[in-house]
Amino acid sequence: MIRIGIFGYGNLGRGVEAAIKQNDDMELVAVFSRRDPSTVKINTEGVTVCHVDEVASYKDKIDVMILCGGSATDLPVQTPQMAKHFNVIDSFDTHARIPEHFAAVDKEAKASGKVAVISVGWDPGMFSLNRLYGEAILPEGSSYTFWGKGVSQGHSDAIRRIDGVIDARQYTIPVPEALDKVRSGQNPELTTRQKHTRECFVVAEEGADLARIENEIKTMPNYFADYDTTVNFISMQELQRDHSGIPHGGFVIRSGKTGNGNSHIIEYSLKLDSNPEFTSSVLVAYARAAYRLNSEGAKGCKSVLDIAPSYLSSKSAEQLRKELL
Amino acid sequence: MIRIGIFGYGNLGRGVEAAIKQNDDMELVAVFSRRDPSTVKINTEGVTVCHVDEVASYKDKIDVMILCGGSATDLPVQTPQMAKHFNVIDSFDTHARIPEHFAAVDKEAKASGKVAVISVGWDPGMFSLNRLYGEAILPEGSSYTFWGKGVSQGHSDAIRRIDGVIDARQYTIPVPEALDKVRSGQNPELTTRQKHTRECFVVAEEGADLARIENEIKTMPNYFADYDTTVNFISMQELQRDHSGIPHGGFVIRSGKTGNGNSHIIEYSLKLDSNPEFTSSVLVAYARAAYRLNSEGAKGCKSVLDIAPSYLSSKSAEQLRKELL
Repeated sequence: MIRIGIFGYGNLGRGVEAAIKQNDDMELVAVFSRRDPSTVKINTEGVTVCHVDEVASYKDKIDVMILCGGSATDLPVQTPQMAKHFNVIDSFDTHARIPEHFAAVDKEAKASGKVAVISVGWDPGMFSLNRLYGEAILPEGSSYTFWGKGVSQGHSDAIRRIDGVIDARQYTIPVPEALDKVRSGQNPELTTRQKHTRECFVVAEEGADLARIENEIKTMPNYFADYDTTVNFISMQELQRDHSGIPHGGFVIRSGKTGNGNSHIIEYSLKLDSNPEFTSSVLVAYARAAYRLNSEGAKGCKSVLDIAPSYLSSKSAEQLRKELL
Repeated sequence: MIRIGIFGYGNLGRGVEAAIKQNDDMELVAVFSRRDPSTVKINTEGVTVCHVDEVASYKDKIDVMILCGGSATDLPVQTPQMAKHFNVIDSFDTHARIPEHFAAVDKEAKASGKVAVISVGWDPGMFSLNRLYGEAILPEGSSYTFWGKGVSQGHSDAIRRIDGVIDARQYTIPVPEALDKVRSGQNPELTTRQKHTRECFVVAEEGADLARIENEIKTMPNYFADYDTTVNFISMQELQRDHSGIPHGGFVIRSGKTGNGNSHIIEYSLKLDSNPEFTSSVLVAYARAAYRLNSEGAKGCKSVLDIAPSYLSSKSAEQLRKELL
């Protein structure tokens, strides 16, 4: 049995807990939280909840620690720190800061002799893999990543910070015509506005100036100004009834040519009911890989790009060749 | 530069030759054929065509030999034999015989200290990878592989063997309703007949009994009897005008659930103008991987499941993390 620890118990931590139950070769040993452990109720009977300060005492009781904090402030500190004691997995998703995060984690993991896998999930993660495979197989071509339809947490938060807004949900939606053009092999150059639209559902305070709120959203730099954005004002009841899920997904498409102008389209797509639960499922599969790699003597920081697919499966190499190849 | 040899010069060999030109870190050194070399005209200036009997003298001049023969009789003999002298790649695609082929190749490659990668292409190959990733990430779910729309060489050949048939082209077509059902997350159990239909375009001899030919096709065991098959008789001119391409493609779909019944759909699809040219492009990317693995000291037989994605790319690990992760 691979002994797993969960570090941070929000949506992602709960998703990891659920995913562990779907994998017969794994067991959850402990959940670590910054909150008072007596106030944290988890969904697995007989498993301890500990304060994060106790984590060092679990050094020999946990094979892989899955870090479930956020990329902004948690993981840049926690992943290198935890890599001193454990094999670790994180879902660090600030694309621009991946090189520095990698360097910080690699240093600690090499020193401790542990394996760390960073930026695991679907983007970065499965989408990155598909960008790499696509580019390597069809070197003469173009790659496209579309996100959605799905809830963007960051954009929803940005709307919530506007004066007069009680709550909000923002959906990122790929433009169907852009997808069609890419799939047709035309290798179009697409602007930000041509690739995605943004749809917002906003609950405003009674008597708030809706026109002002709508204008503040649509003109918000970085978040909305470069997109065609639709704003819908709805009641709190409607928000809770129709927009409580956290679906997401998207498409990675490689369009390339070979020989005398033969076109090929490789398309990878995800349609996810729950963004955090799917991300968690990927984290858990890579926890198995980290454990096995470390058992073979590997150490240091890796990404999904560095790990052979067979390490993700509990099946033997023989079984994989027979059943899946 | 990675020095490549091509062993066998049919559709696949020509595809490999074209793919090498798209990769700046590779050069074609020689093409080996069973035919009289003076009769073999290739598409790369300055490259030697040799008889297969001369291959051993190229031992130190070629880094990776790409085997472009057929799975029925060529590769079971050639791949183990060539692995005695070279890192090798093949596209062995007789799924049921992969374990024994692996064992035979592994023995020779381990003895010679070379790396052999077998069953490279899209199925087996990229489809196998996606079956593995899907199953590992969503352990509670179902996997589906659909082929087409595309030309099946084996089924076209089977029709050509019928008395009174001059030429034929067979298309395998996924049933749209089955695809829709799978994508909806219903995890249906599908029979052979429910998954694919077969469409045949047949050129018959003048005066041949068309009803008999049609009946022989539709009732042919293994090939057509289990499918809804359509037979169209056309002229040789029409066959050459409308059916001279070798397109193919297909879908690998994983449909699974997490947590409290949240559904997720992972879909990988290929739409290929030229089946042999796409397969060749995959072979060439894995030739790079074989070369790099062997340079690091690896030896023995591997499949696509055993090779980390980063080995396929000519970019450095840093560049991959920065640009693609």
